[in-house]
Amino acid sequence: MSETFALDHRLAADTTPVIDLALSRVLLMEDQRFPWLLLVPRRPDLREIVDLDEADAATLLAEIRLASAALIDLLAPHKLNVAALGNQVAQLHVHVVARATDDAAWPRPVWGVGKPVPYETATREALIADLARALTV
Amino acid sequence: MSETFALDHRLAADTTPVIDLALSRVLLMEDQRFPWLLLVPRRPDLREIVDLDEADAATLLAEIRLASAALIDLLAPHKLNVAALGNQVAQLHVHVVARATDDAAWPRPVWGVGKPVPYETATREALIADLARALTV
Repeated sequence: MSETFALDHRLAADTTPVIDLALSRVLLMEDQRFPWLLLVPRRPDLREIVDLDEADAATLLAEIRLASAALIDLLAPHKLNVAALGNQVAQLHVHVVARATDDAAWPRPVWGVGKPVPYETATREALIADLARALTV
Repeated sequence: MSETFALDHRLAADTTPVIDLALSRVLLMEDQRFPWLLLVPRRPDLREIVDLDEADAATLLAEIRLASAALIDLLAPHKLNVAALGNQVAQLHVHVVARATDDAAWPRPVWGVGKPVPYETATREALIADLARALTV
């Protein structure tokens, strides 16, 4: 048991920070094939959604809805994929992925499909600025 | 737009009903490789979690937590996978899957891995009875 939140190093390595919401750190996955956010509640020792107390769970839900709305507004995806899996990295993190019918994995899930394609710097910076603005409430 | 809830025929074909909660119909996926529930909110024309109004979203969250707790109590899984994908069937449905480190897909996600293995009748009936009891609040 740790006393403070620390982001798992594998999640940190695969992402760029977007913004800290009331509960969650929002990260952009470094893979330009899929507009893909991670929401990581900033509490120690979480593995499952049921590990959150009721108030934090309600906040996480609101932040999932906020992230979903931001991706819909910016990208008009065909479908969102929202998921807390944690098979590889057990620290609780929620994927919110904007899917298109011509993306590199459709209609399969995105996990484990091919290799991530890094963003170009300007593209990443512009997307993060747009996302941070859309997530500022 | 339809006016009443109707379960997608593909979700119906792959599952057995467990119980109706306040919002969601709970279904057991017909695949004994993974203890796998689907929660389907009984509202028409839902695709995304953001399509639910705030009260229904809060109820869905409570029901996800209830289903998670039931699977933890009954099966002590190594990890839960909770996901709303909808790439194949767009009707909003939330997967709650109990994962074990020796299951047929670990550590990959369960979707699209191999072929479902049907339950034997007595096993399915016993599991559904246990689940219905654990989900009765």
